[in-house]
Amino acid sequence: MRVDIRTAAGLLKAHDNILFICHSNPDGDTIGSAFALCGALDRLGKKCRVSCYDRIPAMYSFMSDIPQSEVPQPEYLVAVDVADLDLIGPDEFSASFAGKIDLCIDHHASNTFYAENTCLDEDAAAAAETVLLILGELGVKPDKDIAECIYVGLSTDTGCFRYSNTTARTLRMAADMYDIGIDVTMINKVMFETRTKSYNILESMALGGIRISDDGKYAVITVTREMLDVSGADENESHALKAIPREIEGVLVGATMTEQKDGDFRVSLRSNAPADASAICSKMGGGGHIRAAGCTIAGPYEAAYATLTGHIEEEIARATANDR
Amino acid sequence: MRVDIRTAAGLLKAHDNILFICHSNPDGDTIGSAFALCGALDRLGKKCRVSCYDRIPAMYSFMSDIPQSEVPQPEYLVAVDVADLDLIGPDEFSASFAGKIDLCIDHHASNTFYAENTCLDEDAAAAAETVLLILGELGVKPDKDIAECIYVGLSTDTGCFRYSNTTARTLRMAADMYDIGIDVTMINKVMFETRTKSYNILESMALGGIRISDDGKYAVITVTREMLDVSGADENESHALKAIPREIEGVLVGATMTEQKDGDFRVSLRSNAPADASAICSKMGGGGHIRAAGCTIAGPYEAAYATLTGHIEEEIARATANDR
Repeated sequence: MRVDIRTAAGLLKAHDNILFICHSNPDGDTIGSAFALCGALDRLGKKCRVSCYDRIPAMYSFMSDIPQSEVPQPEYLVAVDVADLDLIGPDEFSASFAGKIDLCIDHHASNTFYAENTCLDEDAAAAAETVLLILGELGVKPDKDIAECIYVGLSTDTGCFRYSNTTARTLRMAADMYDIGIDVTMINKVMFETRTKSYNILESMALGGIRISDDGKYAVITVTREMLDVSGADENESHALKAIPREIEGVLVGATMTEQKDGDFRVSLRSNAPADASAICSKMGGGGHIRAAGCTIAGPYEAAYATLTGHIEEEIARATANDR
Repeated sequence: MRVDIRTAAGLLKAHDNILFICHSNPDGDTIGSAFALCGALDRLGKKCRVSCYDRIPAMYSFMSDIPQSEVPQPEYLVAVDVADLDLIGPDEFSASFAGKIDLCIDHHASNTFYAENTCLDEDAAAAAETVLLILGELGVKPDKDIAECIYVGLSTDTGCFRYSNTTARTLRMAADMYDIGIDVTMINKVMFETRTKSYNILESMALGGIRISDDGKYAVITVTREMLDVSGADENESHALKAIPREIEGVLVGATMTEQKDGDFRVSLRSNAPADASAICSKMGGGGHIRAAGCTIAGPYEAAYATLTGHIEEEIARATANDR
């Protein structure tokens, strides 16, 4: 059932022993949103905890200031920024949650409504916007710690207020977080302005192997396990690469293929209008937003590359035909 | 004489045949601020024009929607975002304005008060913030064209709301510009998300030659005339490189040295706390802000490099000694 902000807040208030669940390969929005909710519900005297299949990246370690309780027997499961059940973790792990997610708070138009109740705002640039509104309904005014979590969510999904999903509301919410006194300098630095030496090497290798279509309309960067080993970068560090292919002059679709340990390729797609990234990825079992989406394709590499570029070419042809 | 926003607005209203002067090697703040003022004064029935020694970069061609009059005999000279007279152009050109600038609207703490009247807000992230307040005093509500100019100024100097000079006010001003209906997607793309093929080549060459100090506390990228020739990039395209050296993990001062046609090196410095970029540059006749500043050093290259790194090392030693 689809619920509004007020109802979602009511549902949270009515329950205890709450688990806030992030998607796997967590980004700042799922993490920041989950920790913000956890901090807020803790203020209301609830026992709650953040849970993620993957390790929370070290750059977000400052969020450990948010109190977390032991919740050995969760009574209420809340998925945050999770568009589909299978984004929670590997197949068997995700499947264990089937029919058990009580509430989903999200902003992906591709949400599959797997939860009992879904609070969905497809116009929100980040789940953190929806979470901030819920906090308002809960009567919780964010303190510095909660505000930093919200800010991380807002800035992650907008590429620090650069992507086209940014709205006036996003900026005003960020301004409100500034007023609370967040350490923006620290946060922006770790999120957007830290190039490790290993990232520099990885970027050099990945950029060196960039593949641009003959007509220049799409570009693909590939990150192999070997590149990660040689550079010393871990997969979390490679996220900054994903912004690059789309930025190349003339490109409508930019993709990054990252080789997984099991030989699959996790694909991150970014598009420029009029190409629809979510449409491309949903053809391969994934989804997301119109300008940013993802999916996973089985290896080996050249077969995965052929599958991916085939769908990209179809979408570009469709989108640009409509343009004429 | 130092004047406030209201007085600056009164001075503009009281004059006609106004020239708004940008600094040379113009950035989005000097350009956007000047065009915004020009558009506003045009609305008030004044004859005004934007003037810059250098060509306005093509990425800002959309600002040609702002009406400009012929002003063959300027009666009122207004420097916008210009901290010092010698930033207007080459020596002889700048010197011709000595004692002739009637009003300066600026935000650099290093402003040398060369103008008859100076409206200076050192806390503003961009001159565009001050300009927007002046527009308020003038009773001019920005239309889409003026709002786009303001937005360019705000986003340029904050690196799209990423740098530590960003404030809640900056974000709210940007949100107000969004509400007016600016084409943010287009603007952000041309300003922040367009990598030309020539830039990609230039970046690869420049990054390849990056020099990092033994202690890892500063890094210098050099852009030579030869690199520009070989890559096909023009100097305007190289601005994105300037963000890179500071981003390297552990670096306190990042510098970009760009070779000029006359053999001098234009230096762009970015620092992390506690290093003061403006302090370093003012030792070499330049200036700017605490985290971003510039200067010009005479060639040849190795001598210029030695001069620059000597001052960088002094500032790092001073700043980190105070830190203990």
